Amino acid sequence: MGKKQAVVLLSGGIDSATCLLIAKENNYLPYCLTFNYKQRHAAEIKASKRIAKTYGAYEHKIIKIDLFRISHSVLISDEEVPKDRDVFNIKEIPPTYVPARNTIFLSLALGWAETIGADDIFIGVNSIDYSGYPDCRPAYIKKFEELANLATKAGVEGKLNFKIHAPLINLSKAEIIRLANEKGLDFSITHSCYDPSPEGIACGRCDSCLLRLKGFKEAGINDPIRYASLIY
Amino acid sequence: MGKKQAVVLLSGGIDSATCLLIAKENNYLPYCLTFNYKQRHAAEIKASKRIAKTYGAYEHKIIKIDLFRISHSVLISDEEVPKDRDVFNIKEIPPTYVPARNTIFLSLALGWAETIGADDIFIGVNSIDYSGYPDCRPAYIKKFEELANLATKAGVEGKLNFKIHAPLINLSKAEIIRLANEKGLDFSITHSCYDPSPEGIACGRCDSCLLRLKGFKEAGINDPIRYASLIY
Repeated sequence: MGKKQAVVLLSGGIDSATCLLIAKENNYLPYCLTFNYKQRHAAEIKASKRIAKTYGAYEHKIIKIDLFRISHSVLISDEEVPKDRDVFNIKEIPPTYVPARNTIFLSLALGWAETIGADDIFIGVNSIDYSGYPDCRPAYIKKFEELANLATKAGVEGKLNFKIHAPLINLSKAEIIRLANEKGLDFSITHSCYDPSPEGIACGRCDSCLLRLKGFKEAGINDPIRYASLIY
Repeated sequence: MGKKQAVVLLSGGIDSATCLLIAKENNYLPYCLTFNYKQRHAAEIKASKRIAKTYGAYEHKIIKIDLFRISHSVLISDEEVPKDRDVFNIKEIPPTYVPARNTIFLSLALGWAETIGADDIFIGVNSIDYSGYPDCRPAYIKKFEELANLATKAGVEGKLNFKIHAPLINLSKAEIIRLANEKGLDFSITHSCYDPSPEGIACGRCDSCLLRLKGFKEAGINDPIRYASLIY
């Protein structure tokens, strides 16, 4: 039987790379999609290229969006990225939130999926640790899936039945890292830091680095990437 | 009382221009949003600028999206735009359909709305004439509104209550033209054609021209724009 096509949202981080491995394991032909929205951590985009190449993306497209012109977030501005926070105990939605980001990303993924005739879209969201982002929760993903089937020609005509796969949604960061490790992910080519050096070295102090570091520690696995600063 | 901000999706055509007039009449401060997705009718974008300027948009942003790289439609390719069709009796979804377009546009509008603190988004979709587009129907708009309030920080926190206004959704083209005429819309600065000449002259034969021409005829109003060819 031929492989089914799937659009895989690829950010360059561990979660979306794990999604790509899951999609491949389930016999999907992965069409990887990365966005260049002038996020300050452009090292992400380089990482997405390495991951797409290493794990045999059938196609990899990097799409530019001028998000910074209509949006606000410390990720796409010159403001300071918060550091040294207690990331497992953050209750409020953090300043790294980008308004409607996953809706924008999923809608573009949906457009591509319909164009190539793919029912399936993979997204590496998770809602357990660092659950501040509203567009990472199960109820949101379910609603987008409903919308996808109403929004499109192929959905309305019953030619495609869109499914949003979020296989990591109920996993903790440590569980994701263990899973990725079992699947053989090369962590050294991934990038998570919100505020890397110009050379792409992770800061070790932003929420994303702290979550990654704590996740590796809890999983009992070594994180092979370099950090500018290490507090754990 | 101060004006409320609203994001108004502005394409350069009659429908979205009418939405802008409705938003202003209802005391909204309009933040107009236009997309440059390399649609072949770039004359649309020029028209959107004229309309935003003429009707006092508080802001007007034109956002580039590389949609042609992941999408397919005769609007963004070199394929021929269908001509001379019986536009009021088309049953299938036409080849000018752009996969997930309104979902992409609304998600970006949502991102801007949350950024500026606006509850309200106006979109000029209508589902009566030329009802082939799935993302122009009431059920779709309602579903997007539900999604918007789940997808965003401000929605989840109850700081904003997103509302998608589609004031033309149940109007025929002739009814929209009558309404626009009552509100004083200068039709001469609008653009509808899918396949204009390099100078921006409407072809008079594509679905969009035919719908416009029949709408004006039915409304008993004169269409002041130039057409390269006129079959009515």
